[in-house]
Amino acid sequence: MLNAAGREIPKEIAGRRLKPFKGAFATRPKKRLYGPPMKSFYPGDNKLLESVKEAIKKTELTDGMTISFHHHLRNGDAIVNMIVDEIAKQGIKDIKLAATALFPVHEKLLEHIKNGVITRIEGSLNGPLGEYVTYNGLEEPVILRSHGGRARAVRAGELHIDVAFIGASMADDYGNANGMFGKSAFGAMGFAYADSMHADKVVIVTDNLQPYPVTPISISSTLVDYVLPVESIGDPSGIQTGTMRITRSPARLNIAKNVVKFLAKAKILKDGFSFQAGAGGTSLAVTKFLHEYMKKNGIVGDFVMGGVTGYVVDMLEQGTTKKILDGQDFDLRAVESIGRNPNHVEVSHIEFGDPHSGGCVVHRQTACFLGATEFDLNFNVNVNTHSDGLLLHGIGGHQDAAAGSFVTIVVAPLLRGRIPVIRKEVTTISTPGETVDVIVTDKGIAINPRREDLIEAIKGKMEIVDIEELYKKAKSLVGEPKQPDFEDDIVAIVEYRDGTTLDVVRRLKK
Amino acid sequence: MLNAAGREIPKEIAGRRLKPFKGAFATRPKKRLYGPPMKSFYPGDNKLLESVKEAIKKTELTDGMTISFHHHLRNGDAIVNMIVDEIAKQGIKDIKLAATALFPVHEKLLEHIKNGVITRIEGSLNGPLGEYVTYNGLEEPVILRSHGGRARAVRAGELHIDVAFIGASMADDYGNANGMFGKSAFGAMGFAYADSMHADKVVIVTDNLQPYPVTPISISSTLVDYVLPVESIGDPSGIQTGTMRITRSPARLNIAKNVVKFLAKAKILKDGFSFQAGAGGTSLAVTKFLHEYMKKNGIVGDFVMGGVTGYVVDMLEQGTTKKILDGQDFDLRAVESIGRNPNHVEVSHIEFGDPHSGGCVVHRQTACFLGATEFDLNFNVNVNTHSDGLLLHGIGGHQDAAAGSFVTIVVAPLLRGRIPVIRKEVTTISTPGETVDVIVTDKGIAINPRREDLIEAIKGKMEIVDIEELYKKAKSLVGEPKQPDFEDDIVAIVEYRDGTTLDVVRRLKK
Repeated sequence: MLNAAGREIPKEIAGRRLKPFKGAFATRPKKRLYGPPMKSFYPGDNKLLESVKEAIKKTELTDGMTISFHHHLRNGDAIVNMIVDEIAKQGIKDIKLAATALFPVHEKLLEHIKNGVITRIEGSLNGPLGEYVTYNGLEEPVILRSHGGRARAVRAGELHIDVAFIGASMADDYGNANGMFGKSAFGAMGFAYADSMHADKVVIVTDNLQPYPVTPISISSTLVDYVLPVESIGDPSGIQTGTMRITRSPARLNIAKNVVKFLAKAKILKDGFSFQAGAGGTSLAVTKFLHEYMKKNGIVGDFVMGGVTGYVVDMLEQGTTKKILDGQDFDLRAVESIGRNPNHVEVSHIEFGDPHSGGCVVHRQTACFLGATEFDLNFNVNVNTHSDGLLLHGIGGHQDAAAGSFVTIVVAPLLRGRIPVIRKEVTTISTPGETVDVIVTDKGIAINPRREDLIEAIKGKMEIVDIEELYKKAKSLVGEPKQPDFEDDIVAIVEYRDGTTLDVVRRLKK
Repeated sequence: MLNAAGREIPKEIAGRRLKPFKGAFATRPKKRLYGPPMKSFYPGDNKLLESVKEAIKKTELTDGMTISFHHHLRNGDAIVNMIVDEIAKQGIKDIKLAATALFPVHEKLLEHIKNGVITRIEGSLNGPLGEYVTYNGLEEPVILRSHGGRARAVRAGELHIDVAFIGASMADDYGNANGMFGKSAFGAMGFAYADSMHADKVVIVTDNLQPYPVTPISISSTLVDYVLPVESIGDPSGIQTGTMRITRSPARLNIAKNVVKFLAKAKILKDGFSFQAGAGGTSLAVTKFLHEYMKKNGIVGDFVMGGVTGYVVDMLEQGTTKKILDGQDFDLRAVESIGRNPNHVEVSHIEFGDPHSGGCVVHRQTACFLGATEFDLNFNVNVNTHSDGLLLHGIGGHQDAAAGSFVTIVVAPLLRGRIPVIRKEVTTISTPGETVDVIVTDKGIAINPRREDLIEAIKGKMEIVDIEELYKKAKSLVGEPKQPDFEDDIVAIVEYRDGTTLDVVRRLKK
């Protein structure tokens, strides 16, 4: 089957029937929300667990089940390894791991993949696990989803979770929990909401047990089966991973300046402006420059949707935005702010970007600034694989923000060393070109021809280049990179946020 | 069938199979949560409705459907009448009305009951509608549920809601809504949560449309289909109905003092104490005296579960409780507090009292203070009907608080005029005696023999009387009241909070 993004999609794979991508908003949901079993917790019942071992036993975790985790502690997370180690120790096999994302800190899971404890993964792969999957595959293709798409899949019962292990930096013995306070505070807990509402069983894992009732109540006791106190849920300094420093490259700073210039000249940057902040070095620079421009010109935005950083907190505190809607925090200033400022509001990733909800934040954003490992002549963007074919990143909120925002701006250099970022066709489509409006590079700005309104708005105010020109320029400088040597078998599926299949990733020859 | 409370329950009525009450915690849930249809709201879609007429049309409301409302505006509510009038105007018939509670302000619904627009009611009846039902019945018996029991029934799909109309004093055009701000602010919105999560369609009705995104987000846009702006959702001064003034009766003030004395002498009143505040005149006095006692003795409680009044706000502000958990507000000081104080926390009625959730607040309370129209020798309590058989009140949180609290205290005078409050058997069992521990009257305190621990704790410190003694005293003063002249047919079912049938109300002869 050829899908609407022009990719060849098999009808079925590993028993899973694939629906081809039909267009960003072509599919309306026909399902009902998945209803997990009702719980009961009566006086005399006890939720407190004594050990990870007891958690596995009480939740009746067994071969073939699916377990989930959020990734709010990112590369500082200690929970996934802790739980999977114990599962392995108890001889349980064939587990589907549905962590929202996995990081280099989870590299040790490779031993559990090799020994058959983990046979399937649905979730974002960052780093070594992705590399392993690219060369080896698992028993079934990894399912890659956007943040909003994952929330949708959980709510629709397409990603059925037997046991959700939810890390909390503060919880009571009844399971009321948040991520805002405690030694391991990580801020908003957006990823945990869908899992807490739809997993068959829910375990709160905390290193900070406090007297009942813990508030704010991000996750309610009404959704929780067990509470597992542990020594440490992780190292919150691991939240701030490498990508989260503002760029120092003059070329990328120039890209960021041009984004702000574009928005201003096209008269998009005005009172009421809202945007989604990324965490890449260039996106951070955009946030900083936006703030400076808005402050200087007395512009007040309605909201910023996070991933939140200190740069966004500056905007709230200095009055260039009225509110922050926050699904996850990318640095400790953001964590500190959400626990204190009533206009810094936690939202779930259902609210962030689930297309099959009553309406998500990204559908209301003015703009978003997104990165790319590659983009192509059709404005398709790749954030999952590199040009060498290695699967090294998750989709994140990329698809969601691109689909929803009034203007989606991709910021990328034309080249990374000797590798062109612009391609005739991207290696993997993570986000379809129909949802990408503007690409700002260090060698020029291209506008998607679908957006005649934007082309008209900027005409005569700023130089715009044809995307073909950018392609020719890159090609003249470094040529086309070698095509990766792929096998036929599929190691990962790139699901679109509505549950259709956007692309597949094939196994790389060793 | 004879149920565990000793009442004769039919096996089936109006096509509804009844499960007999088996004991307060004898039943564990076996169902799954009801999953409503998934929604979608894409850029370009519009939620804003122009009129009530359009709301009926767009939600495809038709004969036989069930509509729901919350009662946070109590006797000031304008929404139920507004919607039902329009439904009637459009010729729609056979509607099941699932308002959480109806008040005297809804008396005009009688015309719609008589003309067949409303044929069934599931919800609390306060005043004239209850009186009508007692004499006439509807096509099916009215289902009376506790607050927690109603949330459970909605979540279980036993009370299936086609369209929920949710009044909000502040909302945006996307449906993010709260009750905390605006000219019609009513505070916590606890009743609306279950409906917003499980109704097939959700309409936010507001008289205060504000720019997106409205926060705090009590009801999220993700759950909302339509937003209906209206001139007025009601009169918030109607929140403060008659029962919500502190008693001036010396006898009742004495009851309140004895409650505090009992808790202190039995060493229950200490740091960490928590309780549920009622809104009856005597309960209010208990709150006031508790606060004074705790303040004087340096006792700090963990939380108060509301219905919240200004008396509870005093406790928070003067440090005799650390937190308020708030499902509904009973006066405007409480409304003002919840919008401002981060330790005054909104909770849903799932969190308040749903027994088939992962754990509700009432299961964690130290104490609750509840009223009674009647109580009997088995400690059963009636709050629904009067001794003349008239159905005039809902169950409220009575069953939930009684079942959950460590010590459940019923406060009641022995007589109301010439009517004894103590009966051999209550006319209607609203709350089973096994969950009622202490009854404090103006003529003595009785302790349920099941609570040997309490009897032991108070021994020699305070005079306790046998409940038989209280009964004899009342009888000697006013005799037994005449038994109401009931027909055989059943006009209402008193459901226990777990979905079993606790009692039935029979039709009264005209």
